[in-house]
Amino acid sequence: MTGARYPLSGQSMPHLIPFVEQMLGLPFDPAAVRPESTPPVPPPCLNPALMAAIEHLLPSERRSTDPRARLAHSHGQLSIGEVDRVLYGGRLARVADVVVEPESEDEVRAIVETAIAHDACLVPYGGGTNVSGALLCPEEEGRTIVSIDMRRMRRVLSVDRANGCALVEAGITGADLEEALSALGYTCGHTPDSLEFSTLGGWIATNASGMKKNRYGNIEDIVVEATLVTPSGTVETRRPAARTSTGMQPLALLFGSEGNLGVITKALIAIHPKPEECRYGSLVFRSFADGVAFLKTVRAAGALPASIRLVNNREFRFGQALRPAAHGVHAWKSALQRKWLFGVLGFDLAALAACTIVMEGTRDEVAREERTLRRLARRFRAVWGGAENGRRGYSLTFAIAYLRDFFSQFGIVAESFETSAPWDRIEEVCSAAERALASECAARGVAGRPYLSYRVTQTYHAGVCIYFTMAFSGQGLADPGGVFHDIEQALRQVILDHGGSLSHHHGVGKIRQRFLPQVHSGAGLELIRAAKRAVDPGNIFGIGNGACGR
Amino acid sequence: MTGARYPLSGQSMPHLIPFVEQMLGLPFDPAAVRPESTPPVPPPCLNPALMAAIEHLLPSERRSTDPRARLAHSHGQLSIGEVDRVLYGGRLARVADVVVEPESEDEVRAIVETAIAHDACLVPYGGGTNVSGALLCPEEEGRTIVSIDMRRMRRVLSVDRANGCALVEAGITGADLEEALSALGYTCGHTPDSLEFSTLGGWIATNASGMKKNRYGNIEDIVVEATLVTPSGTVETRRPAARTSTGMQPLALLFGSEGNLGVITKALIAIHPKPEECRYGSLVFRSFADGVAFLKTVRAAGALPASIRLVNNREFRFGQALRPAAHGVHAWKSALQRKWLFGVLGFDLAALAACTIVMEGTRDEVAREERTLRRLARRFRAVWGGAENGRRGYSLTFAIAYLRDFFSQFGIVAESFETSAPWDRIEEVCSAAERALASECAARGVAGRPYLSYRVTQTYHAGVCIYFTMAFSGQGLADPGGVFHDIEQALRQVILDHGGSLSHHHGVGKIRQRFLPQVHSGAGLELIRAAKRAVDPGNIFGIGNGACGR
Repeated sequence: MTGARYPLSGQSMPHLIPFVEQMLGLPFDPAAVRPESTPPVPPPCLNPALMAAIEHLLPSERRSTDPRARLAHSHGQLSIGEVDRVLYGGRLARVADVVVEPESEDEVRAIVETAIAHDACLVPYGGGTNVSGALLCPEEEGRTIVSIDMRRMRRVLSVDRANGCALVEAGITGADLEEALSALGYTCGHTPDSLEFSTLGGWIATNASGMKKNRYGNIEDIVVEATLVTPSGTVETRRPAARTSTGMQPLALLFGSEGNLGVITKALIAIHPKPEECRYGSLVFRSFADGVAFLKTVRAAGALPASIRLVNNREFRFGQALRPAAHGVHAWKSALQRKWLFGVLGFDLAALAACTIVMEGTRDEVAREERTLRRLARRFRAVWGGAENGRRGYSLTFAIAYLRDFFSQFGIVAESFETSAPWDRIEEVCSAAERALASECAARGVAGRPYLSYRVTQTYHAGVCIYFTMAFSGQGLADPGGVFHDIEQALRQVILDHGGSLSHHHGVGKIRQRFLPQVHSGAGLELIRAAKRAVDPGNIFGIGNGACGR
Repeated sequence: MTGARYPLSGQSMPHLIPFVEQMLGLPFDPAAVRPESTPPVPPPCLNPALMAAIEHLLPSERRSTDPRARLAHSHGQLSIGEVDRVLYGGRLARVADVVVEPESEDEVRAIVETAIAHDACLVPYGGGTNVSGALLCPEEEGRTIVSIDMRRMRRVLSVDRANGCALVEAGITGADLEEALSALGYTCGHTPDSLEFSTLGGWIATNASGMKKNRYGNIEDIVVEATLVTPSGTVETRRPAARTSTGMQPLALLFGSEGNLGVITKALIAIHPKPEECRYGSLVFRSFADGVAFLKTVRAAGALPASIRLVNNREFRFGQALRPAAHGVHAWKSALQRKWLFGVLGFDLAALAACTIVMEGTRDEVAREERTLRRLARRFRAVWGGAENGRRGYSLTFAIAYLRDFFSQFGIVAESFETSAPWDRIEEVCSAAERALASECAARGVAGRPYLSYRVTQTYHAGVCIYFTMAFSGQGLADPGGVFHDIEQALRQVILDHGGSLSHHHGVGKIRQRFLPQVHSGAGLELIRAAKRAVDPGNIFGIGNGACGR
C-alpha cells in the first residue's frame, strides 16, 4: 500500500493475493488490469435564467459546470452502479448540471429561493461516501440539477462547555470536526468508517452509526437539535433541550431524510472531554457462536467498551492476509503465538472468530473495562489477543475501499452491506446469506467461488448490526455489475426473510427502495410522503430517495 | 393517611399542617372544608346512526352514555381546570358523549371506520393521568365525541426472551404490565410517578419519562416498535429491529402525538430480567449547588444509578413534614441524627439539599454503585442518609396527588409542573420561577405566601429535568383557579425566557399550546400538521392537542 495517509500505508502485504486466490478458487493474473475509462459526462441541462441568478448569488469560484465536478457530485461509493461505472465506463444517464458551494445558511436559503423561482432541482452533497445510490440523479429529471456542496460550511460556530454541546455547520467532515474539537480538548466521538470524508449533515440524513456508539451514541443520540432549510421555510427548534415532551418532533424526521426534505445546515451536537486513555484489545474465540454469546454477556454485564466487534472466521483470515511481511523477532513471535494458539490450546484455524475492542475513558475506567472483559472472556475459553491485533482490526476498516478499488481493476467485484438482526437470528441470517450467495452465483455462472465474510459491529438490547463483505470474480460474465446487483438484491430479500432489517446504517437511497413496502405499512409510507410534500410541495429536493422516489 | 394501598397509608403525619401553615404564612382551619359538588354533565350529543353502529359493534357492557363515565373520560389530573372543576363545580362545557371499550385491534379499526362513516370525533383514553389538559374536549366540537377507553386491551401478547422484548397491548397500566412481566421474571422498568394508572399507549403519546430511565431508558428508548390505527390505515413497521436506517420513521411521530393521529394499539417494548437487587440510598448536601455539582460528577464518572434525584431545601423540609409520628427508639435515633448533622457537622437546616437514590442490578453492580456514589459524595462533603430516607423520598411521589386533593378541600390550590434546562441554567431557571411566583402572587392579591419547591429528577448529557411543586391559598380570591392558571402561564414564560423547555415529559396538551411558536419554527409546526392531515384528513381524532389545536 503506497502513500503515508493510513496506518497500513508503506506496508507490503505478501499474504493477500494468495488468500484471494484461495478464497475465490481462481488464479490471480496481475497483468490483467482493466484500463480505466471514465465515460463521457452528458452535456449539462442549464436553465439560463437560473444560471444568471446563481451567478448573481455566488462568485465564480463557488459555482461550476465543469464535467469532472458535475460527475464527482453525482455518485457515492457504491461499488456497482457508482464507482465501477465512473471508473470503467458505464453509461452516465444523468448527472448534476451545476455545483454550487454556499458558505452560509443565508446563502443556502437564497439558493433554495432561486431554485423555487426558476424551477430547479436541488441535491445536498456532503462527503460523497453514500453507499445506497442516494446521490444518483433520477434519469427522468428534466429540470436543471444543482448539487449543493456543503463542505465550505465547516465551522464550529460555538462551544458550550458547561453543557457539553457544540453548534457546528453541517458541511464539516468527521476528520475536521474531530480536529477542531480536539484543539479545544473535546471529541464528538462519532466514528463511522467514512469519518475522513463524510459530513455531519450526511450523518443525520442517513441516520449514521459510529463504531464507538456504546460510549458516544449513534447520530440520533448525539444530535440535540438541527436546522433544515426547506422550500417552505426553516425547520428548527428554537429552544433546544436535552430532552423534551413538546409534541411530535420535526427533528425526528431529519434522521434518514436522505436529501428529500431540504438542506441540513447546522446541528447542535453533544461533545465530550477527550478521554484520558484509549486502549485497544482483542480476543480470539473458538467459534463465532462463542463470540456472539460473549457479546451478549458483555451487554448484560453493563460492561460495554466504546467499541467491540466480532469477526467471523473468514473475516479473521482476511485480516490475517493483510498482515505486513514479518521479519526477524516479529516473525519469530508470530510463529510462537500460532504454535501456542493452535498447538497448545487447540484452537481450530478454520473455526475461530475474533473480537476487536476499543476502550476509552479515564485510566481507571479503561483498566476496569479490560479486567471485566478478560474475566468474562474466560467463561468462553477465549484468549486475549493483545492491543496490536485490536488496533490492526480498526485500521483495516479505513483501507477496505482501497482494497475494493485495487481488486476491481482485476475484474473482482466486491461490496459491503449491512443489516440489523435480533440476537437469536444472527447465525440464521448469516448462513442464509452464505447459502443464497452460493446458489445465486452457481445459477448465474460465476467463475470460481464467491467470498462472503461478516462481522457483528454493534450490539443493542434487542439485536446487533451485521456487516457483510462480499466478492466474486466477474471473469466470463457479460455484465458483472448487473449480475452483482441482482445477487445483492436477492441476498437482501433473503436477509429480510430471515429476520434481518433493510439497513442498519447505510440507508435506503435508491438500491433498497423496492423493499420499503416490506418495512413500512402503506399508511406509514404515506405519512412520510405527506411530510415531504408539506415542506417541499414542488419537489425541489427531487433526488427521490427512499419513500420519496417516483 | 387512610387505607392500605401505599407505603404511607395508615400513618399519621403530625408535622404536615404546621409545615403548611409556616410555608403559606396562614393559619389552617380544619373546619373550613369546601363541599364537593360535581357540576351537571351536559346532555350527550348523540348521532343516532353512529349510536346504532356502535350498538351493533360492541355489547352493552362495553359502551356507555352514563354521565359519570362520560365525565370520568373527559379530564386528566390537572389540578385547575380538571380535578378542581370536577370536584368543586366549575362549568363543564363539553364532555365525551359515549365511552367505548374495545378488546382488540380489529375492534379499534372498526370503531375508526364507524367514526369515519358517521362523522364522529374519537378520543383515545388510557389511564386518565394526563396533566396538560390533553383530555379536555374542545368546546366547539359539534360531532359526537367517542372516548375510546383502551384499558381492556391489556394483554402481554408475546414475550421474546432471546431478544429481551415483549409485544404488549397499549391499554395496559404500568402496574399491570410490571405484574405480568414480574410473573415471567422480567421488568420493563419504566416507572413514571403515575405508574399505577397510566398506560403504555399514554406513555408513548406523551413521550413519557420514568424515574429509572438511567437504567431502562425513557419511553422512546424502551419502545422498539408500535402500531397506530388511523383513519388512513394502520401505521406500523413490519420488520421491527433494534436499530435501523430505513429512511424517515413514522414511529418517531408517535412520541408526543397526544391523541392527534389515531389510537396506539400495541407496542414492542424492551424488557429486562428482574434485577437481583434493588437498594435505596440518600445523601444530604450542604447546598443545592453542591448537589447539582455532584449530579454532574456522577454523570461524568459514568456511575449513574437507576434513579437519582436532588430535592431543594424546601422540598426536603416538605418531605420531613410528611414523616410519621416517631415514638420510642425511632424518636431517639432521629433526634441523635439531627444533633449530629446540625450540631457536629454544621449543616444548615435552611440551606441543605438531599439526593434520593435507587440502585438496581446484580448484587455486585449495586454494591459497586453505592461505593462509587459514596466516594464521589465525599468530595462535596455530603453525608450518607441511609436507605430508609431514600425509600421514603420515592414513596412520597405516589402520595402527592392525594395531598393535593386533601389541601384542595381547604382552598389551597397546588400543582406540579416540570421543565428541562441546561446544566448551567438550573439555578437561574429555579430562582427566576421563585421570583416570578412571588411577584405574580403579590400583584394578584394572594393571601399569605406562595410555596414553590423543586427537584432535579433526571439528568442528561446536556441538561436535567426540573420538577416544581407550587401552592398557595385561594383565600379571598374571586376565582382562585383562574388566578392559578394565569400565574402558571406566567411562570412558564419566565422558565422559557431563562433557558428552560416547554416540557420535559408532561407534554403540550392544551395548557401549553400557545407557547409552541416559541419552540418550533413555523415550517416545523406545519410539518407536524401535514403529518396529522396525512393520516387523519377529516380530523376524526379531533382532540386538538399541541400543534393540532384549532
